[in-house]
Amino acid sequence: MNLKMVFFLMGRLVMAEGAMLLLPALVSALYQEYSVMGVFLSISALCIAIGLALSMRKPQNRVLYQREGFVITALGWIVISLLGSLPFLLTGAITNPVDALFETVSGFTTTGASVIANVEILPRGVLFWRSFTHWIGGMGVLVFLLIVTPMSGGGSHVNLMKAESPGPQVEKLVPKVQLTAAILYGIYLAMTVVQIILLLLGGMPLFDAVTITFGTAGTGGFGIKNDSLAGYSTYLQAVVTVFMILFGINFNFYFLIILRRFSRAFAMEEVRGYLAVIVASVLIITANICSMFDNVLEAFHHAAFQVGSIITTTGFATVDFDLWPSASKTVLVILMFVGACAGSTGGGMKVSRWMIILKNIQKEFRRILHPQSVQVTTMDGKTIPDEVVRSVNIFSLTYAVIFAVSVLLISFDNHSMITNVTAIAATLNNIGPGLEMVGPTQNFSLYSDFSTLVMTFDMLAGRLELFPLLLLFYPRTWKKF
Amino acid sequence: MNLKMVFFLMGRLVMAEGAMLLLPALVSALYQEYSVMGVFLSISALCIAIGLALSMRKPQNRVLYQREGFVITALGWIVISLLGSLPFLLTGAITNPVDALFETVSGFTTTGASVIANVEILPRGVLFWRSFTHWIGGMGVLVFLLIVTPMSGGGSHVNLMKAESPGPQVEKLVPKVQLTAAILYGIYLAMTVVQIILLLLGGMPLFDAVTITFGTAGTGGFGIKNDSLAGYSTYLQAVVTVFMILFGINFNFYFLIILRRFSRAFAMEEVRGYLAVIVASVLIITANICSMFDNVLEAFHHAAFQVGSIITTTGFATVDFDLWPSASKTVLVILMFVGACAGSTGGGMKVSRWMIILKNIQKEFRRILHPQSVQVTTMDGKTIPDEVVRSVNIFSLTYAVIFAVSVLLISFDNHSMITNVTAIAATLNNIGPGLEMVGPTQNFSLYSDFSTLVMTFDMLAGRLELFPLLLLFYPRTWKKF
Repeated sequence: MNLKMVFFLMGRLVMAEGAMLLLPALVSALYQEYSVMGVFLSISALCIAIGLALSMRKPQNRVLYQREGFVITALGWIVISLLGSLPFLLTGAITNPVDALFETVSGFTTTGASVIANVEILPRGVLFWRSFTHWIGGMGVLVFLLIVTPMSGGGSHVNLMKAESPGPQVEKLVPKVQLTAAILYGIYLAMTVVQIILLLLGGMPLFDAVTITFGTAGTGGFGIKNDSLAGYSTYLQAVVTVFMILFGINFNFYFLIILRRFSRAFAMEEVRGYLAVIVASVLIITANICSMFDNVLEAFHHAAFQVGSIITTTGFATVDFDLWPSASKTVLVILMFVGACAGSTGGGMKVSRWMIILKNIQKEFRRILHPQSVQVTTMDGKTIPDEVVRSVNIFSLTYAVIFAVSVLLISFDNHSMITNVTAIAATLNNIGPGLEMVGPTQNFSLYSDFSTLVMTFDMLAGRLELFPLLLLFYPRTWKKF
Repeated sequence: MNLKMVFFLMGRLVMAEGAMLLLPALVSALYQEYSVMGVFLSISALCIAIGLALSMRKPQNRVLYQREGFVITALGWIVISLLGSLPFLLTGAITNPVDALFETVSGFTTTGASVIANVEILPRGVLFWRSFTHWIGGMGVLVFLLIVTPMSGGGSHVNLMKAESPGPQVEKLVPKVQLTAAILYGIYLAMTVVQIILLLLGGMPLFDAVTITFGTAGTGGFGIKNDSLAGYSTYLQAVVTVFMILFGINFNFYFLIILRRFSRAFAMEEVRGYLAVIVASVLIITANICSMFDNVLEAFHHAAFQVGSIITTTGFATVDFDLWPSASKTVLVILMFVGACAGSTGGGMKVSRWMIILKNIQKEFRRILHPQSVQVTTMDGKTIPDEVVRSVNIFSLTYAVIFAVSVLLISFDNHSMITNVTAIAATLNNIGPGLEMVGPTQNFSLYSDFSTLVMTFDMLAGRLELFPLLLLFYPRTWKKF
């Protein structure tokens, strides 16, 4: 383990967080919340001091193997979450440190599950920081670091990106990883700005527009109102619906669009699969909830919003879908596990993984019928390597094991089974709300500290796609070799 | 597709069923239910007539490939279930043909889920047939056929056995498949007789002892009382607990015991894993439900019974575990998916598959740490072939897909989500009762015909371990090649 490089990058990361904390400080100043501003400035200074201390000694050996990439990513996310929870504690927004950590991890991992019952009384600076963590975590903090940190060794950048980027395969848009990261952030920023403008055009106040766009872009879901997005106009809800779905699309799609390679963009199997699942789900739910609304268009509007919110793992709500009939709730719970596209800001297991799984099942039929012949499965015209199939399989089964163990661990709090199952589904898949006592009108404060920590672990595990985080708890990782 | 051989074996199978139907006819005669006896005799005659017609022309080519093995097994199970449902319909025990098919498939697949609210009013002959289907399906009807049907081609017997035997690998006790099948049936019969004797010694009436033993041996779970096993003495319940667990053990274990190779038997990793899961689950549940009972021993007794009943996928009950706290119910639902040992009469995903999955996850950690070195996983001292790992992965993921799709399909009946989820868990894993409206004191009659058919499909899919049944619905299976 190249521990010097681990410390160095950790230092850079904490410094970056220190810089990011200046933004909520500025917002506090604008709203004349001077004591809150003081809190943000102090924590920012603390971060920069710690960061400088850690990254002072530049390591000679700047090569990162996969294990270092995984360890840096997992440790990095834990450290920025611990430091990022200080504003909640020091402003008194949250008094229990475990809850504050949960809230911060929920922000960075773009989950959006909250322990705060009344968000409307929070200072503007804190609300801004809470939503800003979504935007930071959406595209990834290390992806950002990649742009600004020089590293040697051909694979070093890829090994860092591999640990943080969602999906079964790391796809580089251009041969240089650093340039790939810069392009991704460029697209992300541009789409964020467009959404803010569209919300402002609909008459939304600037503060609301910015924070809700952060929640949409990162597919996070923290709201600044107690009723999430229920109070906004149909136009504003529709804008958010469209942008949630857009941020759930593989960013390669946008890169191809920029390059004007439209036919290749629209041929992307994952994007087509993702949109097909959305259309099918919206139609099923619209039919199922039609009688609950004045007309079919209103049912369609809310079905589309909730489907977009859940499949992209955002977690905003316009209605209390916990009151919907069984079939609609079942569709939503299934979508929790489907997740968004790989290479998007969304979470969950990802559409491409499910497509690989389904293609592989179909291949099994052919294998049984023709045991002698070699069967090949393809995606976007390319053969899916056996290595990718293998890793998708292991990922999915590890997911299932973590899911089952987590549900068991939190079940000792003796809440209802649907509450527990959907609480884990909502945190492991980085969605936010579940059903029943963690439904869209509820929050996660009912759980014990132990269960809260289990769900904090699950949010990080889900965001980092399991192995980077799990590796921290595997003893051999820390053995000398 | 060797269709001649398919028809020939189907004929043999139906003839065998005709012979088996003579036993409930005899029971009806003993209890002076002469009209019921007439029903069984007529259906028996019908089966023998159909069987003779189908198997009259002996096929020249007696070679079976894997596809024929799968198709014969799946079609065979469907045909004997259709014919086996006639006694329920013709005696008026069940009036809806879909329900009668569900009940028969539930019997043969050793599920034990019932649509009959009051079983105590049924004629003795019908109750006997209902429990006898468990015993027939437990060890497998084609395994039985193997003993009595000559086939050519080295792989033909194995291809038939592969489709019906539970577990990730077919293990032959002795080189000859036919002898293996005979030994398995011998062990099965001997253990059945021992259990009947032990129940009789506890003062249970002969009819009860035989039918309940059929339900235990096949890990089925149909009871002959409306309260399942709650009304019997602690001794009788304890005997059933022990035998449920014994019938859930890989039968290789007993074969090694017979050969006096005790150390190899007790070193079997799957058996140790299975017993470890049972002990852990019983301890957790005992602690969790302790306050609900007079003393810890009583809590332990009921915890052990229910754990044994669920992990072996039997489905008997001594108490209404739907009233237990969340953690206990969560443990039971997890056990539904764990299942019993491969090569036992139990269902579910099987302990050995989970062990292979867990070993493979651990291997992934080592692979990330040391990408260059070759990692090997072993079970019982032998390397697990990649082919087995691959097929376990595909099996598990196909299982998950069928589970999710089934829950969605039955959710349109608009029962509670826990009812739907546990109804599918209980049928796909061949257990019997679920929770809430399909809990141990309830039955499955609340579902629509469509949902009943979905669950009938799931019971067959679970018992035949997915691919044999799924292959029937794959168009290419029926193409000439």
